[in-house]
Amino acid sequence: MDVKKIFEVYKEYEKKEIKLLGRVRSHRQGKVVSFIVLNDGTTLKDLQIVYKADVKGFDKIQSARVSSIIEVTGMVVLTPDKLQPFEVQATELVLLDQSIEDYPLQKKEHSPEFLREISHLRARTKTFQSIFRLRSAAAFAIHEFFQKNNYVYLTSPIITENDAEGAGESFIVTTRADNNYEEDFFGKKANLSVSGQLHAESFAQAFQSTYTFGPTFRAENSNTSRHAAEFWMIEPEIAFIDLTGNIKVIEDMLKYVINYIFENNMDELNFCDENLENGLIKKLENIKNSNFVKNTYSEAIEVLSQAVKNGHKFEENDIKFGMDLGSEHEKYICEVVNKCPTFLINYPKEIKAFYMKQNDDGKTVAAVDLLVPGIGELVGGSQREDNYDLLMKRCKEMNINTEELKWYLDLRKFGYFKSAGFGLGFERLVMYITGASNIRDVLPFPRTPKNLLF
Amino acid sequence: MDVKKIFEVYKEYEKKEIKLLGRVRSHRQGKVVSFIVLNDGTTLKDLQIVYKADVKGFDKIQSARVSSIIEVTGMVVLTPDKLQPFEVQATELVLLDQSIEDYPLQKKEHSPEFLREISHLRARTKTFQSIFRLRSAAAFAIHEFFQKNNYVYLTSPIITENDAEGAGESFIVTTRADNNYEEDFFGKKANLSVSGQLHAESFAQAFQSTYTFGPTFRAENSNTSRHAAEFWMIEPEIAFIDLTGNIKVIEDMLKYVINYIFENNMDELNFCDENLENGLIKKLENIKNSNFVKNTYSEAIEVLSQAVKNGHKFEENDIKFGMDLGSEHEKYICEVVNKCPTFLINYPKEIKAFYMKQNDDGKTVAAVDLLVPGIGELVGGSQREDNYDLLMKRCKEMNINTEELKWYLDLRKFGYFKSAGFGLGFERLVMYITGASNIRDVLPFPRTPKNLLF
Repeated sequence: MDVKKIFEVYKEYEKKEIKLLGRVRSHRQGKVVSFIVLNDGTTLKDLQIVYKADVKGFDKIQSARVSSIIEVTGMVVLTPDKLQPFEVQATELVLLDQSIEDYPLQKKEHSPEFLREISHLRARTKTFQSIFRLRSAAAFAIHEFFQKNNYVYLTSPIITENDAEGAGESFIVTTRADNNYEEDFFGKKANLSVSGQLHAESFAQAFQSTYTFGPTFRAENSNTSRHAAEFWMIEPEIAFIDLTGNIKVIEDMLKYVINYIFENNMDELNFCDENLENGLIKKLENIKNSNFVKNTYSEAIEVLSQAVKNGHKFEENDIKFGMDLGSEHEKYICEVVNKCPTFLINYPKEIKAFYMKQNDDGKTVAAVDLLVPGIGELVGGSQREDNYDLLMKRCKEMNINTEELKWYLDLRKFGYFKSAGFGLGFERLVMYITGASNIRDVLPFPRTPKNLLF
Repeated sequence: MDVKKIFEVYKEYEKKEIKLLGRVRSHRQGKVVSFIVLNDGTTLKDLQIVYKADVKGFDKIQSARVSSIIEVTGMVVLTPDKLQPFEVQATELVLLDQSIEDYPLQKKEHSPEFLREISHLRARTKTFQSIFRLRSAAAFAIHEFFQKNNYVYLTSPIITENDAEGAGESFIVTTRADNNYEEDFFGKKANLSVSGQLHAESFAQAFQSTYTFGPTFRAENSNTSRHAAEFWMIEPEIAFIDLTGNIKVIEDMLKYVINYIFENNMDELNFCDENLENGLIKKLENIKNSNFVKNTYSEAIEVLSQAVKNGHKFEENDIKFGMDLGSEHEKYICEVVNKCPTFLINYPKEIKAFYMKQNDDGKTVAAVDLLVPGIGELVGGSQREDNYDLLMKRCKEMNINTEELKWYLDLRKFGYFKSAGFGLGFERLVMYITGASNIRDVLPFPRTPKNLLF
């Protein structure tokens, strides 16, 4: 029997004996009655154990420290007047493994910074049990959504020779202490992947609907609460659809994930709502029930210009077509103006990647960013340029190495009718659904500049 | 409407009009009637399109080459006397995107070696559609098995400072052209992970049941059909269980995956049975229905010794306790002697990793390998050493850097009662369930020595 199960069936076990293992969260010894709060990791919920001096194993159990492992035999007793609906009155307690005295996670509050230094232990706290269980559930919900819809899961390569879109600095993968890459393991310079999209595009031409879910890397020296050197991305790619179809997939996927965690993880969501972000559940319910709004980039520029005219002050107050929108602008659009998740489409081609489909206006590309209240950009995607000549021309304008990407560009020669897809930064999604405010707290063992522990 | 759907509902659509997109697999023009075999990637099945000179778009469609994308409007007609149960008699055909003439995948047979050089296209062949769809299904089945059983999915870090168990050569991750790692991105030498197990162990102490599913790396210069530099591993870790419990999880997981693909992927399994491994389905059915046998390593040594005495010749014929079993020995045990999947347990400690639980005999550890007919070792696992002093002693005997692994070793100090887990090489599983004989053919874009394409 585990604690999760007991909470499901405790009524059937009233006055019956159960037996289980768990870790001591706290131990309070009284003159007559003593209490152990027990957690076995199967649920966020703790089990209240009550014992008296007549319990078998009394002498040894008295010494059980926080984090020790014990075995409990006892009777389920309903306690309708107490905080917890039932407790276990122990008949036998066995100290299976004692913890040392200076266990780092005693009952007092710890700072997130301190907890990051003990990433091998912090998952035992209620905060991180909530975050990492929600992370696990969200990952599965994403797989389930795509599999139910007949997508093929593709593991795109981690070690690669190209750097996708010049999307950022790459790490080098080598077996050498110098840069003689011709003599290296692969006989050439190798990088850690920054995106699996290009590979996914080739699979979409075979399976129509595909998705990746794997780690990606950026060697960017940015120490912010939203950047990590190693993070996970979901990159679906679908042939035969355009930007409108793409937008529908994004909305359906997000709602699926949120519905899934509402169905399976209310304990964790309640904990996060109370401890990490007040109003979290309401925020997520709004997403579930709202129809996302769609605006063009040009409309956004107009709205922002009008806001400035009306006296609103942005840090970047020089609003004009062609600018890269900052987080402040994105939040203004979806939080102040639309008050709901907002798809921004048709960005100026100069600020977007080479592979995005060029619109007929000659100025914009069929790109989409999803902006959500509280976080700004959550998803970025586009319809892909299907015209080989236009794509080559754009590569040259942007100094993209077409030789290295020949295989990718060539896909357009062998029958290529529309393709669209997007990238979802998994950690950003986990931050969004847990209310965690630092990416270091949603990655089991985060990697950031000058920080490589465990 | 997509091709998968049509095959499910074609009877309801008899003599009704449908409309769909797809890629031309073959195009045979007759004097009166012409045929297009169409595939849209949603299923392994092809759709037979029939058209005559009166079809709308006749002039243009005649030029449609293999791999072009076309739009078909036509009527579903049942053809009970033909190979396929129905066909579509086209009323309108639109050539949406023409392929170039020298499309590399014409109808003739291609060698696996040639196909690896066009990994961006090979997923369009029936062989690779089968393999990669089975790969995708197996990945999902694994996630589903663990999630249904309340395991928490953990993404263990890819970039790491330790090399797990000295399990093999590591790749270095750097942003530098020299080896001045103190000035490097992380301020120290960083490697690509060879295993997520140690991190998973720390999560098992928080969640009881956890699993990883992610890429792992070996910089080993071995050009065999079973080794790749980049491959995916599943590493479950479960607290509070011993070797017997571990063995049960392995067996349950494998049977779950096989049942899942039997329920969802019979088209692909049939194709693989016919084209990659005759008898594949029977082999997998045997696994589903067999009770796996359990032998000790010592028993295996006795059986092998007896075989040698009886005149059986192994390449390594010097059978004695302490030897590392070769693939020939493993196959002999499970194929010739037991004729079913076999768990071998309790290996000599000298040939196993430092973290495995030392048995009371002083000679063996609580390790388990699962040997399966046709492939040899599929899974390797163990109960972990829970005694801090014994673990430290073993580290010293094996020259393991205990300072680097302090966080891992320390887990034993904070209440640690039993833990066990295993590693499943995902590609080896995919080879097993598809009959593919080379690991390069079950990885979307394989990475091997001196080979880094795409």
